[in-house]
Amino acid sequence: MSKLRAVLIGATGLAGQQFIAALQNHPFIELTGLAASPRSAGKPYAEALRTSNGMTAWFVPEPLTPELAKMPVISGDEVKGKDYDIAFSAVEADVARELEPRLAKDIPVFSAASAFRYEADVPLVIPPVNAAHAPLVREQQRRRGFKGFIVPIPNCTTTGLAITLAPLAERFGVKAVLMTSLQAMSGAGRSPGVIGLDILDNVIPFIPKEEHKVEVETKKILGGLQVDGTAITSHDVKVSCTCTRVAVLEGHTESVFVSLGKKATVAEVTAAMREWKGAEVARGLPSAPQQSRWIEVLDDPYRPQPRLDRDTHGGMATTVGRVREDGVLENGFKYVLVSHNTKMGAAKGAILVAELMKAQGLLG
Amino acid sequence: MSKLRAVLIGATGLAGQQFIAALQNHPFIELTGLAASPRSAGKPYAEALRTSNGMTAWFVPEPLTPELAKMPVISGDEVKGKDYDIAFSAVEADVARELEPRLAKDIPVFSAASAFRYEADVPLVIPPVNAAHAPLVREQQRRRGFKGFIVPIPNCTTTGLAITLAPLAERFGVKAVLMTSLQAMSGAGRSPGVIGLDILDNVIPFIPKEEHKVEVETKKILGGLQVDGTAITSHDVKVSCTCTRVAVLEGHTESVFVSLGKKATVAEVTAAMREWKGAEVARGLPSAPQQSRWIEVLDDPYRPQPRLDRDTHGGMATTVGRVREDGVLENGFKYVLVSHNTKMGAAKGAILVAELMKAQGLLG
Amino acid sequence: MSKLRAVLIGATGLAGQQFIAALQNHPFIELTGLAASPRSAGKPYAEALRTSNGMTAWFVPEPLTPELAKMPVISGDEVKGKDYDIAFSAVEADVARELEPRLAKDIPVFSAASAFRYEADVPLVIPPVNAAHAPLVREQQRRRGFKGFIVPIPNCTTTGLAITLAPLAERFGVKAVLMTSLQAMSGAGRSPGVIGLDILDNVIPFIPKEEHKVEVETKKILGGLQVDGTAITSHDVKVSCTCTRVAVLEGHTESVFVSLGKKATVAEVTAAMREWKGAEVARGLPSAPQQSRWIEVLDDPYRPQPRLDRDTHGGMATTVGRVREDGVLENGFKYVLVSHNTKMGAAKGAILVAELMKAQGLLG
Amino acid sequence: MSKLRAVLIGATGLAGQQFIAALQNHPFIELTGLAASPRSAGKPYAEALRTSNGMTAWFVPEPLTPELAKMPVISGDEVKGKDYDIAFSAVEADVARELEPRLAKDIPVFSAASAFRYEADVPLVIPPVNAAHAPLVREQQRRRGFKGFIVPIPNCTTTGLAITLAPLAERFGVKAVLMTSLQAMSGAGRSPGVIGLDILDNVIPFIPKEEHKVEVETKKILGGLQVDGTAITSHDVKVSCTCTRVAVLEGHTESVFVSLGKKATVAEVTAAMREWKGAEVARGLPSAPQQSRWIEVLDDPYRPQPRLDRDTHGGMATTVGRVREDGVLENGFKYVLVSHNTKMGAAKGAILVAELMKAQGLLG
Repeated sequence: MSKLRAVLIGATGLAGQQFIAALQNHPFIELTGLAASPRSAGKPYAEALRTSNGMTAWFVPEPLTPELAKMPVISGDEVKGKDYDIAFSAVEADVARELEPRLAKDIPVFSAASAFRYEADVPLVIPPVNAAHAPLVREQQRRRGFKGFIVPIPNCTTTGLAITLAPLAERFGVKAVLMTSLQAMSGAGRSPGVIGLDILDNVIPFIPKEEHKVEVETKKILGGLQVDGTAITSHDVKVSCTCTRVAVLEGHTESVFVSLGKKATVAEVTAAMREWKGAEVARGLPSAPQQSRWIEVLDDPYRPQPRLDRDTHGGMATTVGRVREDGVLENGFKYVLVSHNTKMGAAKGAILVAELMKAQGLLG
Repeated sequence: MSKLRAVLIGATGLAGQQFIAALQNHPFIELTGLAASPRSAGKPYAEALRTSNGMTAWFVPEPLTPELAKMPVISGDEVKGKDYDIAFSAVEADVARELEPRLAKDIPVFSAASAFRYEADVPLVIPPVNAAHAPLVREQQRRRGFKGFIVPIPNCTTTGLAITLAPLAERFGVKAVLMTSLQAMSGAGRSPGVIGLDILDNVIPFIPKEEHKVEVETKKILGGLQVDGTAITSHDVKVSCTCTRVAVLEGHTESVFVSLGKKATVAEVTAAMREWKGAEVARGLPSAPQQSRWIEVLDDPYRPQPRLDRDTHGGMATTVGRVREDGVLENGFKYVLVSHNTKMGAAKGAILVAELMKAQGLLG
Repeated sequence: MSKLRAVLIGATGLAGQQFIAALQNHPFIELTGLAASPRSAGKPYAEALRTSNGMTAWFVPEPLTPELAKMPVISGDEVKGKDYDIAFSAVEADVARELEPRLAKDIPVFSAASAFRYEADVPLVIPPVNAAHAPLVREQQRRRGFKGFIVPIPNCTTTGLAITLAPLAERFGVKAVLMTSLQAMSGAGRSPGVIGLDILDNVIPFIPKEEHKVEVETKKILGGLQVDGTAITSHDVKVSCTCTRVAVLEGHTESVFVSLGKKATVAEVTAAMREWKGAEVARGLPSAPQQSRWIEVLDDPYRPQPRLDRDTHGGMATTVGRVREDGVLENGFKYVLVSHNTKMGAAKGAILVAELMKAQGLLG
Repeated sequence: MSKLRAVLIGATGLAGQQFIAALQNHPFIELTGLAASPRSAGKPYAEALRTSNGMTAWFVPEPLTPELAKMPVISGDEVKGKDYDIAFSAVEADVARELEPRLAKDIPVFSAASAFRYEADVPLVIPPVNAAHAPLVREQQRRRGFKGFIVPIPNCTTTGLAITLAPLAERFGVKAVLMTSLQAMSGAGRSPGVIGLDILDNVIPFIPKEEHKVEVETKKILGGLQVDGTAITSHDVKVSCTCTRVAVLEGHTESVFVSLGKKATVAEVTAAMREWKGAEVARGLPSAPQQSRWIEVLDDPYRPQPRLDRDTHGGMATTVGRVREDGVLENGFKYVLVSHNTKMGAAKGAILVAELMKAQGLLG
């Protein structure tokens, strides 16, 4: 079988590099187009990364293959959807708003941008949690006259939260969530990202728009696709967060307090997370964690820690620890989670959605 | 008026050094005795700090005065209460359990140790919050046959939380609190304290015993002294926390969600904190923040930050920001606070208690 | 005596803020003008610091006085030298190249920018080291038709090195210097400065142009003013450096290997630094360290450390430790120094030059 | 072929864990014994790592295999050399001084401890550099009556320096080296290691004994084995260092100034390092870097950086950048190197020596 030809828009930024790193050995997706801003157009990719100081601005740990290093960059404005089978998008929201619909006329677009996350005909997919929402793209195609579609992934802070809530929602119901995040710097990118002078020996207690995104997205992801397939009904869980930035490179830590729909014990809550395998169709996808262990519950009370646990199962597992009764909320429990914000929470998460929708037969 | 002669037990450790730094220019307290373990006894204080590698292990930024540098250290076992007017205690809980009662037979002991915090006849005092609890020492003297008494200060993580809850409790009532702390390394001391290898690029989501301390202490501090003066009735607020450690030198950050006893607006909650001057008797104490501004509410959404705000009013103010409605809890609000864990939360906080009880006429 | 009226160009950036902090209580200089880019013009200074996210971008620890907060910002292009007695410049080199000569037509300009450092008629002044170079401004006035003049301060990495070499050059002669710097992030400013993702758990072994600056400037500063006062003859010391960036907020650390002009002992080298009081005219200037202790030599082998020692004498002293024989270079010695890059090495250093030249009668 | 049965002494410490991680999939060495202090004896290895707080103190990123987790720990005092083919030692110097000779009576001991590094009949081996020194163990066996022998590896700071000097010594000669190190925290271990409070926002300019080790070891490693095989003649290169600690987890950075024995160009120096394949017998060893690229020279002026480059070729390559003329030393050049202090510089480096000596037929 020939591989799916993929174009990546926003290829030179940090998020774009993460897509490239994640796709370098993919079993059925091949990057055949790299697009960036007009000033990079025409240059070999490695040249486009070179700064005026002679630095090669490649920031992910995986080395760049010689083939990709040589691939000429095209201008985002000139990408033609018809030349590819699918697109990945790592551009900022304002660029996404323009480029993604143009590509979606012809091909599926899997996007890390927030531009379309909150539209009624756009599913927001975490494969093990809500694979069932993916068919909403049929409605999107109808409404917008797309041959392809746009499927964004959630904000990286939503991802780990929604994954850990999913088994609780299934087994006990969830009524309310209060979450405080301790987020890694990579979530802010590099332009300018988090300045060293601001974060060393410090915590920054505010990330613009982040809390609202988590609150809205969690309800949408845990919600249900209507039987006619035309819309998603948000879950009625109440969500409130405070999002902070800490001096961590990668991996968001979240302190979660949750009120369940019925009585449970710590052992039952732990078991619910540990036994959860997620949507059947998502199991065994190439980017899925081994044995569908989307959640790893750790017994060591000092875990999870972002540096030690972010890369569990290739950064695709959410690690959980410190599951305890809360004592304040009704049927309240509390726990700490770590989720890799630029793997499961970004590029690899979007690739996982592409894998899912191929398995669901929705790409054609 | 001659100054109060004070002895400090645990003088060589980090907490002890903070007492020394804070007392170097005190208007009415003078350190006339420095006590430490027997192996330091007899050495000039600066010698006792010298390590085998030639390092002078003085870790606070304020320079050590030549007088204190030369003062001979006495063994904790040989301190005689009668030689002093008051004592400060910076020893570990197990040493405190033995030494503090021995000194309290003769003189008041102000302690940063947790050994006696939870005993029924021991007040746990934050001067602006519960100065009214201090007279419980009369009952303690009766029961234990002390001429002096023991008054511990709370855990450093409790302090900022209790201070910010106090005006809310007074004006609206508080029903429940869910708090996640991002604590500084200095809280763990130096033996061994937090290891660099563990905390760089990381968060440690567990601090042994910390959460329980905060939950119990907050209720005790916000409680009331019975009319007969013989016991404290804990407040019935429900408290649940998750305490984490981050790569910050000084200053605990806390993300607080609170359920009030009645409806309020963000403006009212903010005003309650801003206008709060605390117990009248605590205002104007030498170590109190200027103009009794125990709480500073900041409008900049990026504040408070531990590095920028921990030293507000000499580290004696709690800074607050991001006051918002919570949307989940009943009459719920959320905010972020920063409190200096080794100033208001430790040595200077204990000195403030001594100042308070002198003002209350309880030292004699 | 009325104060000197000073205008500050580049007032909103990090370097500008350091000038403001340093001048807030100056005995004879008063900031009466704050200039910045045209988009800030007309706004009260505190408004000009406000970002679109509501953050007040004031980054120095000293609070901003209400007077300065309200002072309207003028556009750099519209500053008239005649309205002031002196100017301080905290702009980038390219802007300095244009604005500084325009102001120097009328008034003295003390600059942290590198634009004019290497011109033959421009002295590069560190008051205790080469106050004698300052009269070169007479030649500059002759050549350029200025009523004022431009005097830049050296690169912040040169400052501590030149200060510690000065007593060695005076007493023993210096033939060669090999230096490796471990520089703080504040030296890179904030636009974008050093990105947290780059520096956490890392060292960056290159700072563009820095090494060349240190090599050239050190020779110029240690050189001599010709007897006719028209030029400086560079010192013939050979200088070679490697400049690196580390995860430190403030305070450059430098590991120095130096070859002296004649034999000496460690005790003699140490004494030379310890006893050095610098140029007589620089002693007792308002910004000078107490008792002219420009260099503090520490005996503790673990010192100097940037966090512990950068603020010695208000950030105006260079701290030195680990003075040892080198064993490789001829009459070789090695030591470690710490110098506050944004105090003595930047704003306060430039203010010190203004103080010096006033004392020298060169301002009129 | 059956695997070599290896015992590891000091198995529970950080260095011991690194040996375990490195040996988990070794082609011809199998850990069949894990030894530690008497208080761990008898416990399964994973139990011995459990602290009183419930933490599993396993600090390396590689997961522990279930087999090793279950293996019972033996007391170091009771290890019998005859039960094994070789031993690896990760104990402190004082323990090594006693245990290593006892084991060496029967079997070869490859040690990360410094106890025997400076003895005349003990080679200090970095396989690509001085494989030729290894036969000195025959003399050691004669003198000490050992059937086995002791071969220590150098201090982790020496390793990268000696490797980069080797090709220069071979091609041009080296006369003098001045080096400043910026060392990672992992080099200090965990008992107590570097305290977070000391290193955050800081540099520590002193590491006890380190500089002397580097100076002596470099000369020994670059020296020659006498023709009679009974002693090593140290190289006459002069070496002087200043060793500092920075806030980096792993990977020592070194700023090197070197005086060569004859004229050379930057291109020639670079080529000498790039083309160097090291001792023939060391090429292709299981732990050697691919294609014997012991040194990788990077063109990007911002490299090498410890976080980005320490893991090059499994942490077994030394990365070099910024090769420039020095301008001060005779035939002087300067460069920056990064070497993984706990891989090539510790456990994996010792394993590489075992591999080498097997290839040399010296194990039997």
